[in-house]
Amino acid sequence: MLNPVTPEFETELRALLPAAAFKADTEKYFTESRARWHGHGLVVAPGTTEEVAAMVKACHAARVGIVPYGGGTGLVGGQIMEDGPTPVVLSVERLNQIRDVYPRENVMVVEAGVILADVQKAAEDIDRLFPLSLASEGSARIGGLLATNAGGVNVLRYGNARAQCLGLEVVRADGSVWHGLSRLRKDNTGYDLRNLMIGSEGTLGIITAAALKLVPCPAERGAAMMAVTSPAAALDLLAMAGARMAEGISAFELMHRQGMDFLAEVGPEVKAPLSPSPEWIVLIDVGLPRGLSPDAALEELFAEAFAAGLVSDGVIAQSEADRLSFWHIRESIPEANRRIGSVSSHDISVPLGSVPAFIDEGAELLEKLGDFRINCFGHLGDGNLHYNVFPAAGKSRADYGNLRDVVKKAVHDLAHAHGGSVSAEHGIGRLKVDDLETYADPAKQAMMRAIKDALDPEGILNPGAVMRRA
Amino acid sequence: MLNPVTPEFETELRALLPAAAFKADTEKYFTESRARWHGHGLVVAPGTTEEVAAMVKACHAARVGIVPYGGGTGLVGGQIMEDGPTPVVLSVERLNQIRDVYPRENVMVVEAGVILADVQKAAEDIDRLFPLSLASEGSARIGGLLATNAGGVNVLRYGNARAQCLGLEVVRADGSVWHGLSRLRKDNTGYDLRNLMIGSEGTLGIITAAALKLVPCPAERGAAMMAVTSPAAALDLLAMAGARMAEGISAFELMHRQGMDFLAEVGPEVKAPLSPSPEWIVLIDVGLPRGLSPDAALEELFAEAFAAGLVSDGVIAQSEADRLSFWHIRESIPEANRRIGSVSSHDISVPLGSVPAFIDEGAELLEKLGDFRINCFGHLGDGNLHYNVFPAAGKSRADYGNLRDVVKKAVHDLAHAHGGSVSAEHGIGRLKVDDLETYADPAKQAMMRAIKDALDPEGILNPGAVMRRA
Repeated sequence: MLNPVTPEFETELRALLPAAAFKADTEKYFTESRARWHGHGLVVAPGTTEEVAAMVKACHAARVGIVPYGGGTGLVGGQIMEDGPTPVVLSVERLNQIRDVYPRENVMVVEAGVILADVQKAAEDIDRLFPLSLASEGSARIGGLLATNAGGVNVLRYGNARAQCLGLEVVRADGSVWHGLSRLRKDNTGYDLRNLMIGSEGTLGIITAAALKLVPCPAERGAAMMAVTSPAAALDLLAMAGARMAEGISAFELMHRQGMDFLAEVGPEVKAPLSPSPEWIVLIDVGLPRGLSPDAALEELFAEAFAAGLVSDGVIAQSEADRLSFWHIRESIPEANRRIGSVSSHDISVPLGSVPAFIDEGAELLEKLGDFRINCFGHLGDGNLHYNVFPAAGKSRADYGNLRDVVKKAVHDLAHAHGGSVSAEHGIGRLKVDDLETYADPAKQAMMRAIKDALDPEGILNPGAVMRRA
Repeated sequence: MLNPVTPEFETELRALLPAAAFKADTEKYFTESRARWHGHGLVVAPGTTEEVAAMVKACHAARVGIVPYGGGTGLVGGQIMEDGPTPVVLSVERLNQIRDVYPRENVMVVEAGVILADVQKAAEDIDRLFPLSLASEGSARIGGLLATNAGGVNVLRYGNARAQCLGLEVVRADGSVWHGLSRLRKDNTGYDLRNLMIGSEGTLGIITAAALKLVPCPAERGAAMMAVTSPAAALDLLAMAGARMAEGISAFELMHRQGMDFLAEVGPEVKAPLSPSPEWIVLIDVGLPRGLSPDAALEELFAEAFAAGLVSDGVIAQSEADRLSFWHIRESIPEANRRIGSVSSHDISVPLGSVPAFIDEGAELLEKLGDFRINCFGHLGDGNLHYNVFPAAGKSRADYGNLRDVVKKAVHDLAHAHGGSVSAEHGIGRLKVDDLETYADPAKQAMMRAIKDALDPEGILNPGAVMRRA
């Protein structure tokens, strides 16, 4: 059993760390954007790896839980512990240094508290791209992004957060430090602890710094919106685009007309890209080598796809402003969703080939359960759909209170039946611990438990996240 | 302590598995290409995952060690156990089915015994590329390639073996099966056990099948050989090429004149690409989107690099035959090396920015140690050099017997001092267990041991590989 933070323990920590590490107003650390949880704890913000190590060592000795806190943007409650003995909330905000930049290596070493947008900017400053990009990039911090293996819009081309990381510095449960800030592209010396830490949501160690991989900026950028005749046609279009441009496709996003209707109904105001509004639109973003015109490449793709009956309409960005306006539409959908208010939201993935069947079967299932509007959109290139279920027009989420869990279970069961995931990019946190127990392979769960017990025998690291407290 | 295979235990296994799983002539399983080790054991080749599970369960109950055996092409003795209680050698050769191919998903599910070249061929058959490519691809098997996280010539663009894998089926030490053959591009549900298994060299579980990721074939292929004015110039050329073509660069290989001289001295016979032979050559292989000429792109790159003083000479492939002939030269170097006979060979990596210093300092160090010829070549884009040290002309490796360990230590110490790795792509096996203990971070070693003990408490999985027997 863990112990709570006591006044004596707080005194001990205050003797170990400078005053700046202790915050006066800590309420913001206990809430999150969806207002589902309310946390508690002693908020501590160490300024160096050594301070983190000293603090963790003290918690380990006292058997006090530690809840790591990045930008607070997680959607599954990984950063918020509601119950149990009062923990330390370890905010990484003061670990905010870009330690080194290596242009010749396409590498940057940053501390865990650096904000994603600042990493992107520092990469731009040396004419490189840090491709991790997602809605919360203005506040999400690198430590949290790696701990949750964040996804976003560029995963198709560049991979999840884990693919952007070459090395880590991690404070272990006992306060010892793994100095693993490798800048190597290849290193086959022993177990892959980097990827084990990434995505473990702070339950196996505290990431204090990371060596991040940068990539060259694509020389020529472009984008198109195309009306596809079906989700299956969208997949065929993706394959056709792949045969032409391979990794040149940076993003391939699917949007249903429902999203456009929501935008028209509640805003934010956007200009509809195609009129009349088609049932399904894809946003294709490309970054091509020097000497190849994105417009021409996208026009040729459209012509081939039109001849094959995959697309019925389309518009190609004529400028960077056009390209950004396409993205503005895509990125406004979550806000419209929030304004409408979902009955249940799902971050699922299925094998690419199962996307059309999942969409058809999902609609059938929900029709049997009640009167809903479905806004299905997301990162089609990754098989990752934000499959969100809303009240029928004129109704509100309150009218569906008793159906919420039924809808969630139906959608998750369906994704699972297709070999899919019930958390494609948001992680498990505390929200989906039950789902993990329900859907994950038993051998996988047994291995996870064994690893957790091996690396954090006292269970002090993010207690109750990912897995139930032992 | 482990127990040896006894006649009684063999009888038990023969009752569990079909006769075809037992080989008459087993000598080939006990030797390897460099003739450094000679193994022993009872060779068993199960034909299904269930047979593997039954066999492992029996070994677990009897505490008999298991040495997994793929294509036998490993260079660090991971597949060969010389001493200790007689183990079972588990050959995956009869797990040789391509279970499913999913063209729309760019996915193929194969069993562990499928040979890499057969996977490449099956991908070609559906107009896709399986990009893992290395010298032993005609005999290396997928299980071993994943267990060792194999590298090869396309890592710069496509990543190591781990980057080609979406899911795994693994038999655990107790014989239970992790059914993790996910075909998902995104799945953030729990710890990353896939990457933990990949590269663990059979010490944490037995890979029986894998879901492999395919990629679109690049539409336009091309290559060039360019004489670079220095290793630093080679890195600048790589950055220049990246700014133009980003992921379009499939490989970027460095070769020293010594390699050309060895080829001239002992063969295999190849046509020198550039005359007079420059000190440093890079082979640039590109795969570009449709509509962009590789010749033109490489010519423009050469012109820019020439103006910047990075390159002094070059030749661009005018045909696929030219491109293949460039690769033939590169791939003949290891054979020439074998014919000369090295004093000590090293598979090191350093951060890209440290490559020039490493090369300079290595030459200085070795000059102090004796009279050597250094053939330094490899995957410059990955910072991975095959840094091989040979006798001076007219001498043989026998003349250097007492210097071999000194040379090895000097090279490894130097790589380590630059934040490098002493095994960039070959793994630890049994050859480099001491190196791991010497050079790996203590916290990393402690975590590796804790994970090994947690997942294989009896220590039956590949005993003595990666880590010393407990």
